[in-house]
Amino acid sequence: MPRTAETEGYKFNHTMIRVKDPKVSLKFYTEVLGFDLLSEMKMETFTLYFLGYDHSGGKDTEEEKKDSRLNREGVLELTHNHGTESDPNFQGYASGNSDPGRGFGHIAITVPDIQKACARFEELGVPFKKRLTDGNMKHIAFILDPDGYWIEIVPTRLSL
Amino acid sequence: MPRTAETEGYKFNHTMIRVKDPKVSLKFYTEVLGFDLLSEMKMETFTLYFLGYDHSGGKDTEEEKKDSRLNREGVLELTHNHGTESDPNFQGYASGNSDPGRGFGHIAITVPDIQKACARFEELGVPFKKRLTDGNMKHIAFILDPDGYWIEIVPTRLSL
Repeated sequence: MPRTAETEGYKFNHTMIRVKDPKVSLKFYTEVLGFDLLSEMKMETFTLYFLGYDHSGGKDTEEEKKDSRLNREGVLELTHNHGTESDPNFQGYASGNSDPGRGFGHIAITVPDIQKACARFEELGVPFKKRLTDGNMKHIAFILDPDGYWIEIVPTRLSL
Repeated sequence: MPRTAETEGYKFNHTMIRVKDPKVSLKFYTEVLGFDLLSEMKMETFTLYFLGYDHSGGKDTEEEKKDSRLNREGVLELTHNHGTESDPNFQGYASGNSDPGRGFGHIAITVPDIQKACARFEELGVPFKKRLTDGNMKHIAFILDPDGYWIEIVPTRLSL
């Protein structure tokens, strides 16, 4: 399907999800999943964290990473509404996968070696929604992020 | 922040949202926003549509587009649960931006010329959640997709 000339240069830049505690979420997304923190914007009542995989092989400087935020795809924006992390009455965010609130489904990370990736998640104590061995689709897994959002783990090459 | 060796080659591949009517949604995402349909997978009770921007300048063949699906970032997966498009009792999906169901926020498209992009959306009758002229943030806009999901429109270069 041809793109229209009017949309030339458009990019699917980012996906935003709200998180309860940025310390916990940043640790998960950077250490467990390997994202880089590209930039953050602290506002009065909320802070935005922009994450993305560094495909430069570590060559990008901090400034280049920050600049790349709007001119690349695959950015994950985490929104932290200040206070949720310590509010005993905070009910948590909806994953989007059950009623009420069904709509959003998941984000997905492709990995070169899914067996190795899933074994590492097990070792790290990451909760699974679906292990490779569960259900019919043995080639994909779903893990849960600290807020309960589903993250699909997919092999880079699928033999479907 | 350095990436761990264990996560080398990881990519933030896709984001999945559920849509009521794929005919309406595919028209919106391809014609209004300029995405390409990379591939689709029809299952018994649902169909998955994978969309992504073609950054090859139209050089990628259909086969290459399909193959690229798992080895790139910026893919949008639309899930259609068969029947929702004609079910009078279907309540619609939650955008993620109000209770109950708050969690997911939006996806974002960066565009080279945001004034031109927004003028075109107006001409096409696309509903806005926030025009450039609304609120404090005059450099970004939010439009709504056919299911009511928020789509942020951001200029490729921000002068913040």
